[in-house]
Amino acid sequence: MTAGETIRIPPCSGHAVELDAGDELVVIDPMGQQVSDLTAFCREDLDEYLSSGRSIDYASRLWLSTGDVLYSNRSRPMFTILEDTCGRHDFTLTPCSKEMFEKLYGEAEGRPGCEGNLARALAPWGVSRDRVPVAFNIFMHVAVEADGRIAVLPPLSKPGDHVRLRAEMPLVVAMTACSAGQSNNFRYKPIDFRVERARDRSAG
Amino acid sequence: MTAGETIRIPPCSGHAVELDAGDELVVIDPMGQQVSDLTAFCREDLDEYLSSGRSIDYASRLWLSTGDVLYSNRSRPMFTILEDTCGRHDFTLTPCSKEMFEKLYGEAEGRPGCEGNLARALAPWGVSRDRVPVAFNIFMHVAVEADGRIAVLPPLSKPGDHVRLRAEMPLVVAMTACSAGQSNNFRYKPIDFRVERARDRSAG
Repeated sequence: MTAGETIRIPPCSGHAVELDAGDELVVIDPMGQQVSDLTAFCREDLDEYLSSGRSIDYASRLWLSTGDVLYSNRSRPMFTILEDTCGRHDFTLTPCSKEMFEKLYGEAEGRPGCEGNLARALAPWGVSRDRVPVAFNIFMHVAVEADGRIAVLPPLSKPGDHVRLRAEMPLVVAMTACSAGQSNNFRYKPIDFRVERARDRSAG
Repeated sequence: MTAGETIRIPPCSGHAVELDAGDELVVIDPMGQQVSDLTAFCREDLDEYLSSGRSIDYASRLWLSTGDVLYSNRSRPMFTILEDTCGRHDFTLTPCSKEMFEKLYGEAEGRPGCEGNLARALAPWGVSRDRVPVAFNIFMHVAVEADGRIAVLPPLSKPGDHVRLRAEMPLVVAMTACSAGQSNNFRYKPIDFRVERARDRSAG
């Protein structure tokens, strides 16, 4: 990948990339109404991972957006959300999986889902499927009723909407073009991303 | 512990216990308005753990109660909620921790919090602090506003309220009497629990 090049994540797949502190990751929904499940691990110690529960607690908000910080299980900042043109994401659900497709959709094909695709992308770093936590589900629209019932609705993202995340520590980040029909309005579209390196900015 | 004996978890501490499939765990709030953070691991493979994201997804509800199943990261049932006299619990936040006390309460004492107490209780099974996930926070009352803001309110539990959980696989379960003032209305009370063994029922 060359500096600032936009990479396409094909439908129903995943991709991992290393970031250094200060690098910026731009996750783009090129066609609208697609979801990208994102998770991250600290490259200096892979036992430190992106934590939904910490991030929600510190923001005192279920849904995070511009200015919010995504924390690790060790309560250290992993990302800051610098830009968010969509405004609605989920941080409560685990990535879709083979078992989830069977239970919720009655699918028998055994598609790996975002969980399997994240694990496959993270395999070179030694991160197994069991260690894929609740993800930051970018553009995923989960409505919560007053009685706590949840509904997975089509994303609010329009073509070209993006989220810009600044890495706050050395990270390996994995993200997907989501495989769950309900999350992406049964369209199964790609996701684009771009990395803007801190070293290129300081050299420029 | 003898059969059916009620054990008291002192304020701001944790306790772990092994359950076999069919055993029932009764978690009791003896004085009212106290929270117990609970997590669990499969004894046959400790990489399988209680998953908030899977459980919420399969229930399609943020707040779980009687009849709901608590799932593992591998989408297998770990517990079924057989009884729930309170009706409101949280499954979105990580256990309180030393770092959380510093960030949200400005505390400098370094109390271990539920995270540290769960890790201490789980140490004999080789489970470290990093592996304590988002917990099932029994009796914890987290209100969600329409805009996603959350508020930690005093628990709705009255003295003697309880939750009865049936183990669906061989488990090690850890639970606490919660250390976070906001969660328990700054009263820091104990939690009681009782294990009713399947083998005692079948022998009786």
